[in-house]
Amino acid sequence: MNKTLHIDLEPVGRRADVAPGTTVLEATQSAGIALVAVCGGVGVCGKCRVRLMAGELSPLTEAEADVLGDAAVRDGLRLACMARALTDVKIYVPPESLTTTQRLQVEGQETEIALDPIVIPVDVTLTTPTLDDLRADTVRLADALAEQNIPRPYFDQPVLSDLSDHLRTHNWSVRLALRREDHGFRQGVDEVAGVLPPGDALLGMAVDIGTTKMAVYLVDLNTGHTLAKAGIPNPQVAYGEDVVSRIAYANEHTDGRQVLQFRLIESLNTTLDTLCQQAGVVHDQVVEAVVVGNTAMHHLFAGLPVRQLGAAPYLASASEPLDICACHLGLKLASGAKVYMPPNIAGYVGADHVSMLLATGVWTLDKPTVALDIGTNTEMSLVTKQGLLSCSCASGPAFEGAHIHDGMRAAPGAIERVQIRAGQIQYQTVENQPPVGICGSGILDAVAELYKAELLDSSGKLLLNHPNIHKNGAQREFLLVPAAETGHGRDILVTRKDVNEIQLAKGAIRAGIEVLLHEAGLTHRDLDGIIVAGAFGTYIDVENAVRVGMFPPLPVHRFQQVGNAAGIGAKQMLLSMARRELTQEIARRMNYIELTANPYFTDLFMQALMFAQS
Amino acid sequence: MNKTLHIDLEPVGRRADVAPGTTVLEATQSAGIALVAVCGGVGVCGKCRVRLMAGELSPLTEAEADVLGDAAVRDGLRLACMARALTDVKIYVPPESLTTTQRLQVEGQETEIALDPIVIPVDVTLTTPTLDDLRADTVRLADALAEQNIPRPYFDQPVLSDLSDHLRTHNWSVRLALRREDHGFRQGVDEVAGVLPPGDALLGMAVDIGTTKMAVYLVDLNTGHTLAKAGIPNPQVAYGEDVVSRIAYANEHTDGRQVLQFRLIESLNTTLDTLCQQAGVVHDQVVEAVVVGNTAMHHLFAGLPVRQLGAAPYLASASEPLDICACHLGLKLASGAKVYMPPNIAGYVGADHVSMLLATGVWTLDKPTVALDIGTNTEMSLVTKQGLLSCSCASGPAFEGAHIHDGMRAAPGAIERVQIRAGQIQYQTVENQPPVGICGSGILDAVAELYKAELLDSSGKLLLNHPNIHKNGAQREFLLVPAAETGHGRDILVTRKDVNEIQLAKGAIRAGIEVLLHEAGLTHRDLDGIIVAGAFGTYIDVENAVRVGMFPPLPVHRFQQVGNAAGIGAKQMLLSMARRELTQEIARRMNYIELTANPYFTDLFMQALMFAQS
Repeated sequence: MNKTLHIDLEPVGRRADVAPGTTVLEATQSAGIALVAVCGGVGVCGKCRVRLMAGELSPLTEAEADVLGDAAVRDGLRLACMARALTDVKIYVPPESLTTTQRLQVEGQETEIALDPIVIPVDVTLTTPTLDDLRADTVRLADALAEQNIPRPYFDQPVLSDLSDHLRTHNWSVRLALRREDHGFRQGVDEVAGVLPPGDALLGMAVDIGTTKMAVYLVDLNTGHTLAKAGIPNPQVAYGEDVVSRIAYANEHTDGRQVLQFRLIESLNTTLDTLCQQAGVVHDQVVEAVVVGNTAMHHLFAGLPVRQLGAAPYLASASEPLDICACHLGLKLASGAKVYMPPNIAGYVGADHVSMLLATGVWTLDKPTVALDIGTNTEMSLVTKQGLLSCSCASGPAFEGAHIHDGMRAAPGAIERVQIRAGQIQYQTVENQPPVGICGSGILDAVAELYKAELLDSSGKLLLNHPNIHKNGAQREFLLVPAAETGHGRDILVTRKDVNEIQLAKGAIRAGIEVLLHEAGLTHRDLDGIIVAGAFGTYIDVENAVRVGMFPPLPVHRFQQVGNAAGIGAKQMLLSMARRELTQEIARRMNYIELTANPYFTDLFMQALMFAQS
Repeated sequence: MNKTLHIDLEPVGRRADVAPGTTVLEATQSAGIALVAVCGGVGVCGKCRVRLMAGELSPLTEAEADVLGDAAVRDGLRLACMARALTDVKIYVPPESLTTTQRLQVEGQETEIALDPIVIPVDVTLTTPTLDDLRADTVRLADALAEQNIPRPYFDQPVLSDLSDHLRTHNWSVRLALRREDHGFRQGVDEVAGVLPPGDALLGMAVDIGTTKMAVYLVDLNTGHTLAKAGIPNPQVAYGEDVVSRIAYANEHTDGRQVLQFRLIESLNTTLDTLCQQAGVVHDQVVEAVVVGNTAMHHLFAGLPVRQLGAAPYLASASEPLDICACHLGLKLASGAKVYMPPNIAGYVGADHVSMLLATGVWTLDKPTVALDIGTNTEMSLVTKQGLLSCSCASGPAFEGAHIHDGMRAAPGAIERVQIRAGQIQYQTVENQPPVGICGSGILDAVAELYKAELLDSSGKLLLNHPNIHKNGAQREFLLVPAAETGHGRDILVTRKDVNEIQLAKGAIRAGIEVLLHEAGLTHRDLDGIIVAGAFGTYIDVENAVRVGMFPPLPVHRFQQVGNAAGIGAKQMLLSMARRELTQEIARRMNYIELTANPYFTDLFMQALMFAQS
């Protein structure tokens, strides 16, 4: 029994070498992958779910099956803390079983796509000029390309500004980054995106600009590999925590829009610096970028006006796909690099939503499916055979920890999981640090568990039948963690107002889903599945989200948490022209529903505010 | 005899109302037009030549005919100081008869061209958005254009950056400046150059960037009228007086190229401000620019590298016509305005030369003609039936007053005309101010008159047979104006070294002409005419230029002094797409000869250094 077994962990791509009989949880821990285990790995909380893909685990026990529930068992799930490896095994770890920090690293589920990037390398060697051959540099280069049957490309001014020096530095032998004419607005002629030493890899940058956080990926356009990536805060947070306050800042301050744009670009330039250093490459190799974001972030990044986004009827300035010179934006890529931005749908359904629909492939499904990305604004689409219906609802910043008494972002020490079992309160924090506050998934859990434990009525009122629930003046509050246990020596509370914030948020999301279903003549019983994208959507406990009524009561296995699908979509668009074209098809098939003008929304919202046994 | 006569003065377009019998010189003076009259208007110097176009003047006297010479008489010229108006007359004042200041105002000879500007106005009214009509602004605008059968134009990022605000400010009714697809690199789609209030005139800016001076014109694209114009110094003079020293500055200083570009753009922005104020218009109306200059100025303006211009084989970075976003350059025009730059020929034959050839139409002539633009570098073309031959010679800055003992620019007090008659020295200064120095045309006159008066031998040595010529140490010098007569109380001298500078300059120009003739298998006797363009070329006395051997000995009437033809060509390209296309035809027909590699140049230059009776 001294044999060593290999436990391959997917999609993270790590391997643990362990003794036979080791639990999968122990294996993940030895591989440095942290799974959620609120109960401490004793088979009670049911959070550390994994799926066997190959090899043999210890048989499912009755206790394990109880905790998992029938649906999960049918779905082939196991509890990592109970299942022991009997042979070499390959284990799939779904994102929801990872702790916050781990999920941040793992991100979305990638799909293999055919590589077909818009920018391709062309190696070319020019003849050296002499007094008998005085052709200008551009002419000399175009003539050399003509010998390869490549038509004369367009040199934009930023490329011309260093072309002559590059040609001489590289001794008349260069790798051109040629941006292929994309059948878009600039027809007929390829453009030079960059001029590099021969053999240099062409790279791309994919960016998902969230209102709070941004994801940046540095990708090899030839292999499709992500060379480096980073999750960074959106620096505009200093100017307003949500989209509405950013727009207000832009409108009310001299050069407000320019300041917000500058901060964003500055931060992306710094991040790209870091990523380039990590990957051992240089800026000049980054010959293309794809940027997605909600419409406000899209406009602020691209330098478009946002005034009209801030007042009814909340119009996008431009909704078509854009190809913007990186240098127009001050983004430090290769001199002729362009930034591609896929189409927006409406003022509050942005290119990031389109990118998510693209990455998940949900828009091609035949059976009715909802795909949504939860944030301060939650953008959602209902896919049916007839096409796509989309809307956006103001779900507020509660899930980002804002407007919550002890709310915080998902930083170390944030309570991210809560369970109340027989009156006993259990919780888990990010990186297992002493608790200092509650992040979005934690507050959702707390409210759901309070409701499940009948400590909360359907109107959201805290009931005084638990020792931790007491009055503070007129307001009731729930003591989640007493001061003695916390990292900062203060009680961590869930207040009635916190519950209300969650009610408003989940009510808005649910009402949005119901409006879409209503417009399509469907009910939630017709839904085949719900795809939950985005950072927060990945962290939440879906069962609890259903419990509070945020989502319609579908079986848990009908939900798919896909991580940062918008970022994955951006990467796909870097690597494939065909993927870009699909976004226009998505936009064409999309019908946008403005909730503020929808006659059913208010009623549905009022209903959805309540907690109700579903 | 109390009747008033109208004297119409062309091409300046002024009228003088005078009593019958008034001389044309008096009429021009009363109209505020200053003619050259070195002799003070007594019919001796022969400089105030004009041509009668309509009406009747006093008959030509024998004395007048003597001063004018046969050729001028045959050419219909009269002396303004002698000819008296007998009826209403229309008088043509050739540029060479105007004083420097007047000529600066009059500039080149304009040709009527068919208006066909690349940017045209399109008035469009959009439907107002409602909650039932949430199209993005660009879509709404494109749809409104489609109703006028105008295909969707391209909106570049700088246009998008203020489109939404413009649409709302102008209450959804705007005038678009549409830049028509020019069959160039960006095929198939018109671009939006600017968004204006309905009815606003579309304007263009034409610029000729000389190494020393720049000419800027603000033009109405609809009428072709020049609304305002300015002649300003090239601010780069502070970084080097000629092209070579500018290139050295760019190469030897960190950001040298950027500094030179910035100074240029800054100066043009300030000038445009002034011109806009004069014309009562705003920047946003300036929807297109055409900029010409020699290849170094072209590259420094456009932000192209100049390192390779500074070393053999002196290559242009780009020679094709360019359409550059004004915003790439920092030029403050309408948000989507482009700057068109016609093609360059070689490192030292630039877009300004092409523009001059275009404006004069010389390139279409059947009979052998030389066209040249005298400056620190003199660019010249020989037109024959077989095509165009061009070269550039380093004529040095002597004609701009540099490297001349008492040299100065053509500012007030500069001696611009010199005559020596029977040993008597006469001179005229700019604006008739007390003399303080000698400008280019003055030093050319002085040398030619010294030679004519046999005070200079054919090698350029001053002869000691005039009281004003004496030795100063080893060097001889000619006292042009004694200290007592000058504005600054110092002698104004012409030194032997000054004569040498002029020899080098005129020798280079003449050798260039001879090389072109030689390459074409011609001699100067085959030449039908010589077209002299540029500021300095306009001011010089052609007879004296022939006398010193700068030009081959053609009759004076075969010379045409056309003023700032490069600037006129730039204006034409603003107003006509067809004119732009012709520049490419000019470039195609052009063969460039690199003098430093030409086997005949050195011999011809050595010969041309001498003064010789021709």
